[in-house]
Amino acid sequence: MSKLDDVYAKLQVKTGAKMALIVLDGLGDIATREQGWMTPLEAARTPNLDALVAQGVAQGRMIPTAPGITPGSGPGHLALFGYDPIEWEVGRGVIETLGLGIELKNGDVAARANFCSMDAKGLVTDRRAGRIATEVCERLCKILSAKIKKIGTSQVFIYPGKEHRFVVVFRGAGLEGPLTDTDPNREGLPIAEAKPVDPKNAGQKKVAKLVADFYKVALPLLAKEKPANGFLMRGVAHQPDIPTFEQRYGLKAAALAVYPMYKGLSQLVGMTKIEGPETIAQQFERYVAEYENYDYFFIHYKYTDKAGEDGNFAAKVKAIEDFDEALPILLARKPDVIAITGDHSTPCSLKGHSWHPQPVLLHSSASGSDKLSRFTETGANSGSLGIFEAKYLMRLMQANAKMFDKYGA
Amino acid sequence: MSKLDDVYAKLQVKTGAKMALIVLDGLGDIATREQGWMTPLEAARTPNLDALVAQGVAQGRMIPTAPGITPGSGPGHLALFGYDPIEWEVGRGVIETLGLGIELKNGDVAARANFCSMDAKGLVTDRRAGRIATEVCERLCKILSAKIKKIGTSQVFIYPGKEHRFVVVFRGAGLEGPLTDTDPNREGLPIAEAKPVDPKNAGQKKVAKLVADFYKVALPLLAKEKPANGFLMRGVAHQPDIPTFEQRYGLKAAALAVYPMYKGLSQLVGMTKIEGPETIAQQFERYVAEYENYDYFFIHYKYTDKAGEDGNFAAKVKAIEDFDEALPILLARKPDVIAITGDHSTPCSLKGHSWHPQPVLLHSSASGSDKLSRFTETGANSGSLGIFEAKYLMRLMQANAKMFDKYGA
Repeated sequence: MSKLDDVYAKLQVKTGAKMALIVLDGLGDIATREQGWMTPLEAARTPNLDALVAQGVAQGRMIPTAPGITPGSGPGHLALFGYDPIEWEVGRGVIETLGLGIELKNGDVAARANFCSMDAKGLVTDRRAGRIATEVCERLCKILSAKIKKIGTSQVFIYPGKEHRFVVVFRGAGLEGPLTDTDPNREGLPIAEAKPVDPKNAGQKKVAKLVADFYKVALPLLAKEKPANGFLMRGVAHQPDIPTFEQRYGLKAAALAVYPMYKGLSQLVGMTKIEGPETIAQQFERYVAEYENYDYFFIHYKYTDKAGEDGNFAAKVKAIEDFDEALPILLARKPDVIAITGDHSTPCSLKGHSWHPQPVLLHSSASGSDKLSRFTETGANSGSLGIFEAKYLMRLMQANAKMFDKYGA
Repeated sequence: MSKLDDVYAKLQVKTGAKMALIVLDGLGDIATREQGWMTPLEAARTPNLDALVAQGVAQGRMIPTAPGITPGSGPGHLALFGYDPIEWEVGRGVIETLGLGIELKNGDVAARANFCSMDAKGLVTDRRAGRIATEVCERLCKILSAKIKKIGTSQVFIYPGKEHRFVVVFRGAGLEGPLTDTDPNREGLPIAEAKPVDPKNAGQKKVAKLVADFYKVALPLLAKEKPANGFLMRGVAHQPDIPTFEQRYGLKAAALAVYPMYKGLSQLVGMTKIEGPETIAQQFERYVAEYENYDYFFIHYKYTDKAGEDGNFAAKVKAIEDFDEALPILLARKPDVIAITGDHSTPCSLKGHSWHPQPVLLHSSASGSDKLSRFTETGANSGSLGIFEAKYLMRLMQANAKMFDKYGA
């Protein structure tokens, strides 16, 4: 916790205001000649967003983590939730596990794993075991799960993923990551030893021993399998002990997300997962139904990012228009504070996440107006929020919710 | 190294992209009534810059070090090279020495010195020895150099500057700055003792003894000279052990600078000095010739700053137009990433460096477009890069060069 975090905590009061953070995943984009120097937000027909802008919104752009850094969904969302993504690092094993929809507890150590093929000498001959079918992966995980429930005093959980991928979770006292990978990164080498990244860290040493013991019991169970007679572990990390939304902000928070990854990320900070809704319209309807039950709603919309990843400009425009069409459902029971933004940019021309600041819109009775007619990247450049680090969005939402006392006299 | 620096280092990959940082020294300016509220950038005819802007660039403004701080060339350039100028302080003695075109090694201690006049009691009567001619200074330095090559185990180098100015360099193991000045700062006082700024620092104590011993042998050699029978030392500092461009970014970097100071500053971070070019056109031609040999080119143009220092608006406009005229030579072999900016502002109306954020332009296949028609201070205010600390420019250039892996999953 930084000194600034302490100040925020001290100034915090309860107001009962309702807040909604709406994340259009990968919303931000860049203008290119190919698309007539238009971004998808600029090209989309968004009458409902435009009407919201006309009611008075503050706009700006957010640096997702730090200048030039392209975030994954983990750091991207942690920042939106107000947690410094450089300070709170969430390991790949944890993110992968959350992405499979598996619940983790603070202190759990998770690793992503691949089934692999080995020769008689124990050298890796195929790091992905010929990308075995998902059904084979499920069968192998069942074999391992049936025989390996505990190692020492730690519980072991094994969950299949797609094709050759699975995850391993260790649960016990005093476990800590990160560890080095057992993946030798190329064929012809033996499975590597997982070593503590910090050799003096007792928790990491304990996990290193756990991983080694896990291999001792697991490899014999796979010895007669073909082609998947071994496995490699990567991104061995523990779920950090992140203060929850309730602890940090005194807010009851709910997550309305369709994809497991985002449910997992919200759960990481103690939000309640609301299951059921499959479309953005259903998510907004559920928000209305749950209005009285929570202070803060995280509503996640995936399709802008998907279109960006595919480099499909028209699909990204359509995803924005679909979102816009559903927006009135939320606005019919308008929360006191609305933020609409992305967790990062996913420019169609780059077909992937990027470091470009995502546009953000903030609406409340105190948001004022930047006198812009629409919500776009170029407009947001000259908005009153400026270009700021995404980790401060939550603080601006709190301020708009009148959740902060005056600092000093 | 901050935690953020660690993150950048971990994400860094090699891509072979070519980058050029073009520094128009002191480029930034402020609009005044006297010049019809125009800045030199706004008043200049810049068809080639305008054409580059039309191809899609991101613009912004950079705080050279920290808000309100006016930097010298040293901190100004360190920031452009991606080194926090508050963290990496380079002493005046070092900068002065670099400015004379003298190469320093890490750990060398350098001091700028003035010849002065003293009376029979050893009191300083003229701190600049009546600004003796440069030839006299050269003769006196030769006398000192001939007799003083070593003190203890440390080597001593003496280099003349203009008029009464010279520099002294100590090279040896375990030397460290900074020390207090021997300049009493006014006439009528004796030469002061150079003391360690940190009295517990062994390296500083060693240098304090060196300076005292240097005086013991040097003053008798000048005893019969008139008017320069003494000297004062200021800014005694060591060249800090700065990680090189190669170490920090994995980049082979070359400097195309005409003035010694900028060659020196580039060498401080391990760039290769390319000698020969005298004009910006020649610098660009040489860039084209050396294209395959380096990853990163630092191209320095002095005349915008000179005009600003002189308060000569027309000359600053002309300097910008001359630069613009040469620009097509570079663009004919366009690097993957171009940044055009200043190391600080040098407003004509202030006749000196200032703290005003300098405008910056970034062009790459991923830069997008801010839909501005020109590159100016006022336009850059609403660019997608926002107003940011200059030390992040290098990170944005790396991002545009696709030099960073994604952070987190």
